[in-house]
Amino acid sequence: MENALNLDTVVLSEDKKSIILLDQTLLPNECKYITVDKAEDIWEAIYSLRVRGAPAIGCTGAYAYYVLADKLDTTDMDEFVKECTKIMEYINSSRPTAVNLSWALNRMHSVLLAEKDSKTVAEMKVRLMEEADAIREEDIQISRNIGKYGFELLEKLGKGVGIMTHCNAGTLATAKYGTALAPMYIAIENGWDPKDMHVYCDETRPLLQGARLSAYEMQAAGIDTYVQCDNMASYTMKSGKVGIIFVGCDRVAANGDFANKIGTSGVAIIAKYYGIPFYVCAPSSTIDMTMESGDEIRIEQRKAEEVTEMWYKERMAPEGVGVVNPAFDVTDHELVTGIITEKGIAYAPFKESFEKMGILPVEKFVDKKEDQ
Amino acid sequence: MENALNLDTVVLSEDKKSIILLDQTLLPNECKYITVDKAEDIWEAIYSLRVRGAPAIGCTGAYAYYVLADKLDTTDMDEFVKECTKIMEYINSSRPTAVNLSWALNRMHSVLLAEKDSKTVAEMKVRLMEEADAIREEDIQISRNIGKYGFELLEKLGKGVGIMTHCNAGTLATAKYGTALAPMYIAIENGWDPKDMHVYCDETRPLLQGARLSAYEMQAAGIDTYVQCDNMASYTMKSGKVGIIFVGCDRVAANGDFANKIGTSGVAIIAKYYGIPFYVCAPSSTIDMTMESGDEIRIEQRKAEEVTEMWYKERMAPEGVGVVNPAFDVTDHELVTGIITEKGIAYAPFKESFEKMGILPVEKFVDKKEDQ
Repeated sequence: MENALNLDTVVLSEDKKSIILLDQTLLPNECKYITVDKAEDIWEAIYSLRVRGAPAIGCTGAYAYYVLADKLDTTDMDEFVKECTKIMEYINSSRPTAVNLSWALNRMHSVLLAEKDSKTVAEMKVRLMEEADAIREEDIQISRNIGKYGFELLEKLGKGVGIMTHCNAGTLATAKYGTALAPMYIAIENGWDPKDMHVYCDETRPLLQGARLSAYEMQAAGIDTYVQCDNMASYTMKSGKVGIIFVGCDRVAANGDFANKIGTSGVAIIAKYYGIPFYVCAPSSTIDMTMESGDEIRIEQRKAEEVTEMWYKERMAPEGVGVVNPAFDVTDHELVTGIITEKGIAYAPFKESFEKMGILPVEKFVDKKEDQ
Repeated sequence: MENALNLDTVVLSEDKKSIILLDQTLLPNECKYITVDKAEDIWEAIYSLRVRGAPAIGCTGAYAYYVLADKLDTTDMDEFVKECTKIMEYINSSRPTAVNLSWALNRMHSVLLAEKDSKTVAEMKVRLMEEADAIREEDIQISRNIGKYGFELLEKLGKGVGIMTHCNAGTLATAKYGTALAPMYIAIENGWDPKDMHVYCDETRPLLQGARLSAYEMQAAGIDTYVQCDNMASYTMKSGKVGIIFVGCDRVAANGDFANKIGTSGVAIIAKYYGIPFYVCAPSSTIDMTMESGDEIRIEQRKAEEVTEMWYKERMAPEGVGVVNPAFDVTDHELVTGIITEKGIAYAPFKESFEKMGILPVEKFVDKKEDQ
């Protein structure tokens, strides 16, 4: 089993013409890369979760912007800007909830708008590639820092600590290290034996990212790893084996409400009931200071078959039955112990805490409130 | 789609020599009966959940006692009692958590011990058959009464009410009507249009009784029925669509703590957070007054493959990973709004409430504390 830290989730091809993605829908049974360079294929790869995890989607969005812009054969900058705007909007439509996708696309577009009058189209294409590479490099550094702050919490709890996580916010969800799983990687880099940690992974229905991806990563890192059905989280927390909970997130509102994989809010409510500290691991790019509260976050609804048949040998619910299938839920900030960013850990009141860290609203070209 | 009320979960064959069980592992895709008359086959049918649901397991246990006793070829009563004790202990070992199995076996054994000096072995066999039939008939009446009390709660909430349930405590889990789903059947018998109710069924991993069985029953009854992954319960409750939660149970301790399908305690904690009334539907045979609290309830641990591969097209977690797979969890009585029995609804303090209803400790021959 390959150490997941050695797997590249998303990189640019050597000829700089396409994106190479680890197809995460095939894990843990198969470790296969796909190469995409067409808009529809990139859109499908994001929608179908071949690449997933808010930060990894952000990197993919940035590379998508560059790769598709690079193919445009105009030399007219106005035409180039117009086509880039369409690219941005199309790619952004693949996943509405994760802010990182729109964040990365907005950042790419800002560069374009800021420098369009001083560059040729050819120069701009090189500039966009550099910006996309920079987003990926920064993502690695951000994950390392989140891991460092998270590891400080583990150190206080001591070796032998039990950690629960939901979905996958690991190295597979980012360019490297991950967010919610980064503290464990950093612990190992700091000399902890992997067996000093016991990690409980919610399987995370319907798409099983916990069972397939988090369990894979943590086990490959040598950690004592357990898979549990989502509905077993209360049982495990009650048993006293869980000292801390780390989850990732797809979007944090200014007040600390956050959207993450469906089921996260239930984990947070149960953790509060049992008095277990609950931390959200969030690159500052995930914090959307233009949204006052989680009520404004748009929740992606996905197709019924993911619940009733996608993974099964045969259909597992009667034909024609109604299906609830939101991809995310919103967790109230009052359930959150702290939000770990690359700039430090934010505590309540979160808005003030974010502002003190210098996290500010960013200009948006897509994913404006009117879109929603 | 057959109305589930027309399906017999467990009955004696016409020649009174074997038990006919609806094989619930094949639902909702196939509706097939199996006939069992050997101890090992009955044990396997219970262990493998071909028959499941605490009351239905109780009926099966009673018929198992009779059918296996009926086969004994001794005419010596002492020998007969000795062999019946072995039968009882063997069948009881198939599922340790549900009290109804041991309750039914204990009741059959009490009849044997009370009347052994006044009957021949041949007479006793007839007597045991009558007792098993009586247990089944009473179960139907008990379920009707639970449904009646539950329906009174629905009437107060009014037509259009949303109901959430976990696992399957429907007609398939009993001889008829069910416990947690009985209120909806009784509502229809009382003239409610099935579309006056919206039922949200947790799919209930790992064995999917909610998606396969509850959704099947409720949809077949014409009710507006939804399946959701277990981790979506918080999302649906937050949406305001759920007016009440009904769950079944496998064993209730004297203080109101109760064991039910894994995940129930999480549903109860989340319901409390959102202020949604949470009711446990419990035949009085499920209430074990010899247990002070839920801490004494033994939780059955099941095999890892149920979580990692049983239903899947391919294995869904890495090989060799640890797996948490408790079949049940214990919900604290402080999370319970009321416990609906066939004698009325018990409210806190539950022990006093049970005693006022005349629910008392019963004599145990199997499932004594020492067994655990």
